[in-house]
Amino acid sequence: MTKAVVIGGSGYTGAELLRILSQHAEIEVVQVTAASNAGAAVTDLYPSLAGACDGVLYEDFSVDGVVDGVELAFVALPHGESQQHMGGLAERVAHVVDLGADFRLPAASYGEWYGEDHQAPALLTEFAYGLPELFRDEIRGFAHVANPGCYPTAAILALAPALARGLVEPTGLVVDATSGISGRGRSLSPASLFSEANETMAAYGLLDHRHTAEMEMALSAVAGQAAQVLFTPHVAPMTRGILATCYARPASAALTSEGLLDAYRDFYRGEPFVRVVGEPVPTKASAGANTVFVTPRYDARTGTVLVVAVEDNLVKGAAGQAVQNANLILGLPEETGLPTLGIMP
Amino acid sequence: MTKAVVIGGSGYTGAELLRILSQHAEIEVVQVTAASNAGAAVTDLYPSLAGACDGVLYEDFSVDGVVDGVELAFVALPHGESQQHMGGLAERVAHVVDLGADFRLPAASYGEWYGEDHQAPALLTEFAYGLPELFRDEIRGFAHVANPGCYPTAAILALAPALARGLVEPTGLVVDATSGISGRGRSLSPASLFSEANETMAAYGLLDHRHTAEMEMALSAVAGQAAQVLFTPHVAPMTRGILATCYARPASAALTSEGLLDAYRDFYRGEPFVRVVGEPVPTKASAGANTVFVTPRYDARTGTVLVVAVEDNLVKGAAGQAVQNANLILGLPEETGLPTLGIMP
Amino acid sequence: MTKAVVIGGSGYTGAELLRILSQHAEIEVVQVTAASNAGAAVTDLYPSLAGACDGVLYEDFSVDGVVDGVELAFVALPHGESQQHMGGLAERVAHVVDLGADFRLPAASYGEWYGEDHQAPALLTEFAYGLPELFRDEIRGFAHVANPGCYPTAAILALAPALARGLVEPTGLVVDATSGISGRGRSLSPASLFSEANETMAAYGLLDHRHTAEMEMALSAVAGQAAQVLFTPHVAPMTRGILATCYARPASAALTSEGLLDAYRDFYRGEPFVRVVGEPVPTKASAGANTVFVTPRYDARTGTVLVVAVEDNLVKGAAGQAVQNANLILGLPEETGLPTLGIMP
Amino acid sequence: MTKAVVIGGSGYTGAELLRILSQHAEIEVVQVTAASNAGAAVTDLYPSLAGACDGVLYEDFSVDGVVDGVELAFVALPHGESQQHMGGLAERVAHVVDLGADFRLPAASYGEWYGEDHQAPALLTEFAYGLPELFRDEIRGFAHVANPGCYPTAAILALAPALARGLVEPTGLVVDATSGISGRGRSLSPASLFSEANETMAAYGLLDHRHTAEMEMALSAVAGQAAQVLFTPHVAPMTRGILATCYARPASAALTSEGLLDAYRDFYRGEPFVRVVGEPVPTKASAGANTVFVTPRYDARTGTVLVVAVEDNLVKGAAGQAVQNANLILGLPEETGLPTLGIMP
Repeated sequence: MTKAVVIGGSGYTGAELLRILSQHAEIEVVQVTAASNAGAAVTDLYPSLAGACDGVLYEDFSVDGVVDGVELAFVALPHGESQQHMGGLAERVAHVVDLGADFRLPAASYGEWYGEDHQAPALLTEFAYGLPELFRDEIRGFAHVANPGCYPTAAILALAPALARGLVEPTGLVVDATSGISGRGRSLSPASLFSEANETMAAYGLLDHRHTAEMEMALSAVAGQAAQVLFTPHVAPMTRGILATCYARPASAALTSEGLLDAYRDFYRGEPFVRVVGEPVPTKASAGANTVFVTPRYDARTGTVLVVAVEDNLVKGAAGQAVQNANLILGLPEETGLPTLGIMP
Repeated sequence: MTKAVVIGGSGYTGAELLRILSQHAEIEVVQVTAASNAGAAVTDLYPSLAGACDGVLYEDFSVDGVVDGVELAFVALPHGESQQHMGGLAERVAHVVDLGADFRLPAASYGEWYGEDHQAPALLTEFAYGLPELFRDEIRGFAHVANPGCYPTAAILALAPALARGLVEPTGLVVDATSGISGRGRSLSPASLFSEANETMAAYGLLDHRHTAEMEMALSAVAGQAAQVLFTPHVAPMTRGILATCYARPASAALTSEGLLDAYRDFYRGEPFVRVVGEPVPTKASAGANTVFVTPRYDARTGTVLVVAVEDNLVKGAAGQAVQNANLILGLPEETGLPTLGIMP
Repeated sequence: MTKAVVIGGSGYTGAELLRILSQHAEIEVVQVTAASNAGAAVTDLYPSLAGACDGVLYEDFSVDGVVDGVELAFVALPHGESQQHMGGLAERVAHVVDLGADFRLPAASYGEWYGEDHQAPALLTEFAYGLPELFRDEIRGFAHVANPGCYPTAAILALAPALARGLVEPTGLVVDATSGISGRGRSLSPASLFSEANETMAAYGLLDHRHTAEMEMALSAVAGQAAQVLFTPHVAPMTRGILATCYARPASAALTSEGLLDAYRDFYRGEPFVRVVGEPVPTKASAGANTVFVTPRYDARTGTVLVVAVEDNLVKGAAGQAVQNANLILGLPEETGLPTLGIMP
Repeated sequence: MTKAVVIGGSGYTGAELLRILSQHAEIEVVQVTAASNAGAAVTDLYPSLAGACDGVLYEDFSVDGVVDGVELAFVALPHGESQQHMGGLAERVAHVVDLGADFRLPAASYGEWYGEDHQAPALLTEFAYGLPELFRDEIRGFAHVANPGCYPTAAILALAPALARGLVEPTGLVVDATSGISGRGRSLSPASLFSEANETMAAYGLLDHRHTAEMEMALSAVAGQAAQVLFTPHVAPMTRGILATCYARPASAALTSEGLLDAYRDFYRGEPFVRVVGEPVPTKASAGANTVFVTPRYDARTGTVLVVAVEDNLVKGAAGQAVQNANLILGLPEETGLPTLGIMP
């Protein structure tokens, strides 16, 4: 049994980590921190965790305060905070899975897209980019993992097979995606209020959303040449779920939808968390589960490849994938403790 | 491993049975029927069940068509249908858990509230009323179980401790409750359309909702004298969840909220699926879980006892409780296979 | 044309005032204040008001800063703030319609329910309680109006006819009501976030919600004797709408539902904003409109009177009623500028 | 006062026509038909119309049954039905505004995209394509109007300025759009049930949605050369609203976002129902209103033009635009009776 701490456990990804890990046979959460809610009971914020977290209180976070015997830290802090603590933390625990954006990009790319210098650039090379379906073997060789962003997980898994097989051009990629509102986290802003987010949709972050860099980095690695993505995020009135509709230019004229489906099925054969489907499914097919559904098409009329992917942004897009990565670096079976059935209706 | 059939598996309670039973170590679903969707794949209707029901097709239902070796039937048919088939079915399988209303009430009461004669009155005495927290021992002695309605489960568990301890009068009870829309099932009607049910609430079934009879039957048994309930159901724009706010007249003047909380905690001590809480929790504390949360109050100013209960109408209010009852009649540990953590946010 | 200022115009009731008043032929909003959003454009917060508020900026509020010529002030400030400014404001403008709770109750009752002394008790008698359907004539005689709360508007209009006609007892009243989330206003709290308020219901404010005092005050006036109410508020996942289900004990045994319907129709005959209906309607029948729908019942079985009322909490429950009251004190036709059709679906 | 009939008045666009026309000073609805609801009261289906439609019953439809004196027919029938009746109807009334798809496309294009021959091809040339912002003068010269589809209205208005000014290529256009669920109408299907449409998003109609033909037809007219569109529709859990995110390839390298905004502002100068905005707004900025909001961008990094448009699918995307067209063919001021303010929150 590996002892773990969840750092930043009062946000939505933190709560989802606690829910998933409570069913995990090999990882035991022995400490939960949350600076802004220190002293509160976990079940006051999330009564849904009654029975799993009874009597557990959020603690203040400090590296020194991590209890002895903890080997694994899940870090779910707001952007920019984990790089401040990572030096000490990586000395104190054997493994870190960072769910934020701090350790996903090379220093130069980080500076370019985040508009600030990285504060712990030397540590960046100690983190694997944790998208297991594409980089499983590399991840196993690292001590620490940078867990991918929610949008990148869906978009990269949607486009990777076509790029890896050379079926589409690596430039001219468009990712048009929509997230449920939990993607904004638990921080307070008028746009996240029910009354403003309900019964409405909106585009945001036009042209320069930071997740673009992550998509380009991973898709370039898959394609073996520089990929270029235009990413347009939207928000829809649902708590969970991401749907990404991706467009690409074919690399050859011989494509068909059937051929694409075959290529995708072949690419993801045996993957426990990716399902290639013949027809698009609703996002809640994966609600609460670590599953991504993908369906590709070729439109001969306009000469366009189109791929639709759906996931639960808090599970495969965050906490579930973090556990998947933890399983990998701990040498456990990759599926340990991970839910795969969605909740419908 | 007990082999089971789910009869009426294309509705929402049917789908929830399939989700829960896929995680059950002692019951294996070997057949799923759905007259209106016969021939369709389960995962076409519920892609969320991919991985658990791959390749499973809905079959037409007939008693003779139940596959050999099946010992347990979960019946989730529309009102009035299960009584037509129950004679044959109860001969063919050892155990039936009926999730509909057909076998919950005595024949006279059934006739009074449903406005029609029961078609299999002789079978009524072969069914236990399956509210385990109140009637666990009786249930174990029956071959078959009539699973309680969604509203009655919440209302009865809310009021039972106060009645059992003689703290409130058995008459003058008011149950004011609200359900998510999945309570209406998957049948098609304008009122169930998203566009008509979204962003709105409505009362319905004023004065004579049929679940009243079930509440009065069970609460009378608990109180040891005739209980009388005025039940007002409402529908709110959410898929799952029931919240019941119940009002009762105190039987003595010595009540306090703290005393009620103590009495409730004592009454439900050790129950795996009932949590007595100090403050009301949102319905989604139990989303996807077989848990009921209850909090009582005494208002000295107006001389009224108030109890709020929440549950997931499809789990503790239907499929989860059905599995709990199946565990009882099969002699399995009562908690086998049942989720207890809600999904928040 | 009466010139008006909206004080506290960045909240939801403020925005609704701006929407309604933009269609009002006799009142012109010439100034909008919002301390927390001073300097922002109204259309940045509410692009829905483009065309009506183009170029209008929120200003800081001070009594001295009210522009010359303003005769009417709508005050939509957080609880406790309007009593701080009212002395000066009531000198500077001829008429105030206060949408908050500060001037609704007598000083003693205010102190009891709000747990603090009123800071401008001498001004309390200068404000009418602005429920026009019950107190129209009194309102016309006042310079200023305290606009009723959202829950009290629904509950009082639901119970008033039965109390006024002596059909029910003034004690033992129960108001079980549910509000859309906009009732919490635009202030930031986790419970108001979409991710926490969506797909869930919750009870809150058990036993001691402050609106109880207002209901008892108005219903006592109607009944001619002390009324006593137990009020249980809930929140449902919708932006707008209040549904109140009210219970009362009959004062005589001769009641019928038909008789109650007749009495209610008679009581509200000619009222432009109250519709007595034979069946309950969904809250969104009044979405965006100043209309209340009411339906009463008598349950002979349990001896209980039940009344269901629905309204839009931001219109008849706030901004619309404020305009209705403004019309009264300005001597305008009461319906001027007020929408009466809901938006469905 | 022009007398009008609403044919197919029980669906959502029919109800929205009744709401809007009840405020119209020059058009009076004297008859409402609805085959499937004949005999029912309008206010039974839409209590929101109480006060405007009291006592009005839905009638069966026949051309002969149209009451004398009716000069204008709004036809909101399911696809394929209006072409069966149009011959007789166009003889009986002076003006028809058809809200369905039957008279929008030339016969050949209709056959290609709808997979069936048009049943009244001779009448096609008697209908203007009713997008006033682009074809106002042509519309005035016709007796009848084919009202555009909901998606095409948003997409065409989003792309037209760039194509008209030659700023983008007419091929390679991508329209990625999402609709609220009311776009599916009031017909009954599992996918439209609240429990299946809530808390989820889905893509549908991949590659071959029929609205593609309409977009290409209108955009070709604007561009002066053949336009080609790949259209991907989605559905989001909201009742109303369409958001269209459109992508195009620049025709020159000299574009900037600022230049595009200027070009769009210039193109739509003076339009009462189109607002060019600097930042994207949520769909409910136009809830209940006949307004479209548009914001364009140029992404120099990837060489892509992006335009986001939002509207209320039932108003500017259906009933509101139908009234706008009726105003045009009746020679009335184009804005008569049309709401322009959205409802927020």
